Amino acid sequence: MYRTHTNGELRISDVNQQVTLCGWVQRIRNLGGMTFVDLRDRYGITQLVFDTEKDKNLAQDARALGREFVIQVVGTVAERSNKNSKMPTGDIEIIVQKLNLLNPSDLPPFTIEDDTDGGDELRMKYRYLDLRRSSVRRNLELRHRMALEVRSYMSAQNFIEVETPVLMKSTPEGARDFVVPSRMNPGQFYALPQSPQLFKQLLMVAGFDRYMQIVKCFRDEDLRADRQPEFTQIDCEMAFVDQDDVLNTFEGMTKHLFKVLKGVEFDYAFPRLPYAEAMEQYGSDKPDIRFDMKFVNLTGKVSGKGFKVFDEAEYVGGICAKGCSEYSRKELDQLTDFVKKPQIGAQGLVYIKCGTDGTFKSSVDKFYSEADLKQIASMFGAANGDLILILAGIRKKTLTALCELRLEMGNRLGLRDKNKFAPLWVVDFPLLEWDEETQRFYAMHHPFTSPKKEDVLLLDTDPGSIRANAYDLVINGVEIGGGSIRIHNDDLQQKMFKILGFTEQEAEDQFGFLMNAFKYGAPPHGGIAFGFDRWVSLFAGIDSIRDVIAFPKNNSGRDVMNDSPSTIHENQLKELNIKLDLSEKK
Amino acid sequence: MYRTHTNGELRISDVNQQVTLCGWVQRIRNLGGMTFVDLRDRYGITQLVFDTEKDKNLAQDARALGREFVIQVVGTVAERSNKNSKMPTGDIEIIVQKLNLLNPSDLPPFTIEDDTDGGDELRMKYRYLDLRRSSVRRNLELRHRMALEVRSYMSAQNFIEVETPVLMKSTPEGARDFVVPSRMNPGQFYALPQSPQLFKQLLMVAGFDRYMQIVKCFRDEDLRADRQPEFTQIDCEMAFVDQDDVLNTFEGMTKHLFKVLKGVEFDYAFPRLPYAEAMEQYGSDKPDIRFDMKFVNLTGKVSGKGFKVFDEAEYVGGICAKGCSEYSRKELDQLTDFVKKPQIGAQGLVYIKCGTDGTFKSSVDKFYSEADLKQIASMFGAANGDLILILAGIRKKTLTALCELRLEMGNRLGLRDKNKFAPLWVVDFPLLEWDEETQRFYAMHHPFTSPKKEDVLLLDTDPGSIRANAYDLVINGVEIGGGSIRIHNDDLQQKMFKILGFTEQEAEDQFGFLMNAFKYGAPPHGGIAFGFDRWVSLFAGIDSIRDVIAFPKNNSGRDVMNDSPSTIHENQLKELNIKLDLSEKK
Repeated sequence: MYRTHTNGELRISDVNQQVTLCGWVQRIRNLGGMTFVDLRDRYGITQLVFDTEKDKNLAQDARALGREFVIQVVGTVAERSNKNSKMPTGDIEIIVQKLNLLNPSDLPPFTIEDDTDGGDELRMKYRYLDLRRSSVRRNLELRHRMALEVRSYMSAQNFIEVETPVLMKSTPEGARDFVVPSRMNPGQFYALPQSPQLFKQLLMVAGFDRYMQIVKCFRDEDLRADRQPEFTQIDCEMAFVDQDDVLNTFEGMTKHLFKVLKGVEFDYAFPRLPYAEAMEQYGSDKPDIRFDMKFVNLTGKVSGKGFKVFDEAEYVGGICAKGCSEYSRKELDQLTDFVKKPQIGAQGLVYIKCGTDGTFKSSVDKFYSEADLKQIASMFGAANGDLILILAGIRKKTLTALCELRLEMGNRLGLRDKNKFAPLWVVDFPLLEWDEETQRFYAMHHPFTSPKKEDVLLLDTDPGSIRANAYDLVINGVEIGGGSIRIHNDDLQQKMFKILGFTEQEAEDQFGFLMNAFKYGAPPHGGIAFGFDRWVSLFAGIDSIRDVIAFPKNNSGRDVMNDSPSTIHENQLKELNIKLDLSEKK
Repeated sequence: MYRTHTNGELRISDVNQQVTLCGWVQRIRNLGGMTFVDLRDRYGITQLVFDTEKDKNLAQDARALGREFVIQVVGTVAERSNKNSKMPTGDIEIIVQKLNLLNPSDLPPFTIEDDTDGGDELRMKYRYLDLRRSSVRRNLELRHRMALEVRSYMSAQNFIEVETPVLMKSTPEGARDFVVPSRMNPGQFYALPQSPQLFKQLLMVAGFDRYMQIVKCFRDEDLRADRQPEFTQIDCEMAFVDQDDVLNTFEGMTKHLFKVLKGVEFDYAFPRLPYAEAMEQYGSDKPDIRFDMKFVNLTGKVSGKGFKVFDEAEYVGGICAKGCSEYSRKELDQLTDFVKKPQIGAQGLVYIKCGTDGTFKSSVDKFYSEADLKQIASMFGAANGDLILILAGIRKKTLTALCELRLEMGNRLGLRDKNKFAPLWVVDFPLLEWDEETQRFYAMHHPFTSPKKEDVLLLDTDPGSIRANAYDLVINGVEIGGGSIRIHNDDLQQKMFKILGFTEQEAEDQFGFLMNAFKYGAPPHGGIAFGFDRWVSLFAGIDSIRDVIAFPKNNSGRDVMNDSPSTIHENQLKELNIKLDLSEKK
């Protein structure tokens, strides 16, 4: 027994108790003949006191300690004269009688405090020190509690967690697979799962009915800021369900998690917004509905006044920013610059100021009279003091740009509070996406997603307009999860493969075992998968998933702490029947 | 809503209720004008009734159903005239009014019953059908409940589950790694973890204090009957602990699991048996102590009577089988054949029959008088009616052979009841094992295991005799888990690497990041890892881990269901900067 208590545990009621504590030296202060040491562990900080007058040698030993030394002390709990109400242990301190140095420490490369002086790279290289900071540790504690809650809640709903294989079959559809050469099967490879999709559908065929798994998935993609080659999903599937059953079940789970982990209760059903409406109202399939500011479509309603930009645009639309009519020239220029950034790509920005005095001013005064402007403002339901911002151009591009502008205005107006949560379901996604480059349809969700019953007939005539039984859970503009009702009918699945351009042989090679399984009584089924890392970071109130992952990789997929990936021995390669082929890299 | 109830749910109190059920057709019986269908799902079986006289078309549809068809029925709950007390739903049946065929089924390749006619290979190929059998499904339900219990119990003990990376660094020590070529880092590879050992030690350095994870691990070994290339561990680590703290903590977990999952309560502390005693008493570091029958060491105590085999043996020892003195010639020959099997390797078997009449008979009567035999029998504490079985030879080999003989006698005497559980800790394992072939020491547990304090001085003089702070949890002769207190001192760790024959450069290359971490205040720490698959199978009362894994691989590491591993496209190889090298296989 190295300790009797943790450093977050002792209170005023423990005064006079003899205790043994262990931990890391957070800070040392010498005040006259007294030395104060803040002793830290995962549970908190406790103040230790060494008095030169009482024990000179002991106090000397204490002064010789350094930051992050690991020590064990025996002492007596005493009431502090100078209490610290900010710390749970702030009422007491430990009068130390015995000090045992368990391990010294080199000077850490950055300070281990909530606000650290360590840059990202240094923090990642010394991640084990970074993890000592309570801000980072708290994120992982939240992650732990969240996983536990998901599991116990789902289990109470009769879901059973089944571990699916990590070493599985490579399926070229979708993102790039990570592969694993098989020594015992020369020339052959396993793939790491991009998701357990096929296995969870097989579990439905197997009658498992309600499956869930918190599971690592892998995608060999070029990494953007907030992607990781390995990430964690809450993966779920249900049999004998339609779309409403799935949404209701996981809305229940979502509400439970909000309640238990964030203390937030939703006493209403989450909105269910069809994809087409989401695009029309917010220009996005993951709208942030913490604030309103819906798009108003002006296409065709503002033409004929000689303003070519509006007259010729495929789409004209705008938003109304409450109380912004007094924006300065500079502010409006900033917004114009914002929408003209290459990644947003608008040509320009039209504004209408609805003055507090009832006047209207606009950047297109030349073409639109005050009466015209007033009429446009009325389409927005604008009040005196509001600012209307309008974009025009190719429909798809303009919707996206207007979406970005709306979010920017949300930020400027403080409407995107991290402590406010606005979940919704986006439903009725298109089944297929046409790809101009390869001149073929791709499954928007995946090839097993079922079309809406009422749209099935369009499969032969107009596949692009078919809506799918596919849905996303969106919270605060972030896609937290997505899923679909699957095809459970072999004929329909074959038809889908055909539309997606698979030859019969290709479909057989890649999905034959699933299609074969479907011949033996596949129940109707559907499911959903949630991005666990993303959800934890949403709850943690941070933007990057990196800080909710214990040992993340950098943008080149490297773990800078242990310097991996790394080269392997020649004989390992030989055993695996592979050779390096770096010719093109030379 | 496809159904109002499951097939395990309806009782006599539900009579007259209108219900909708879904499931698979388990069996159809036609009795006169009545058709009975057993409808199955994960929750049970409910009997459906179709009456030709009431609805001819409906009954005809029912007769056209086949095994494993997926159907939905609407009907009324009725009391059965012919109740089946073996089924929870056996008091009722459903008078069906509406039948909806959700999906037909081809004839399954084997019958989906607890006792199936499907051989192993067929069952694995159609695993999704095999999983429909309740005997297999129950194993996975047990696995699910067990994982949940481990997590909630450990979380209540302040353990936090941390996900460690799957894509990590290859470390050649230990078994063979599975590796993953990195596309973004040409010529470099990730390795899949054989265990998260290094990461969990880093988490201790990071102050996480109590870590646990139920985690997939990977070993590229030639597979024996009961090995899988991917397997699951309950991986745990604690800081500020000594060996007793670890054993007490996980003895608590073990007792909890037994209580909750098996209804077995242990009101005593598990025995803690030093490795040396386990070898001396049972010839094994994983003794089955459901029964006693300890070895009696006769070395030096039975020599000098002219029996060369005993006189010249390094070790002579035996066991006493209660009540077996009347074993026939044939039975004794069987036992002799058993110990002479090549995999056991004894040269012969000496027996002493302690007759019920007080006489002694033996296979070495020629050398030992009845008085001699009586004296030997007294060393075993043998009673009238007992049978003593003795082996002699090289110590290590003979202990192992005697261990096998003991287990065989335990089987013959019915002393190895699957419903009885006898856990123990084996402690004080040797730190090092000498390997004759490579003429070097290997770490018996792993290179981070700490030597016992009192043995540290032997590091320079007699490393082979050092005992480690290493321990195994053994239940019914099966190693369920093992761990150790780790070295947390950099100097001692360097010394260990040296003894294990690492050059400084090799140690630095492979474990440099851990050694570096240890410089910044590593706390004393230790841990344990349990074989989750093995533990579930112990609780399920089955011998193979394969049936507690949803989608296991065969002995060649293949998933015969989806026929993986498989070849991958040439352009995938190219992107990964590798080439196949099958030259030697041609």
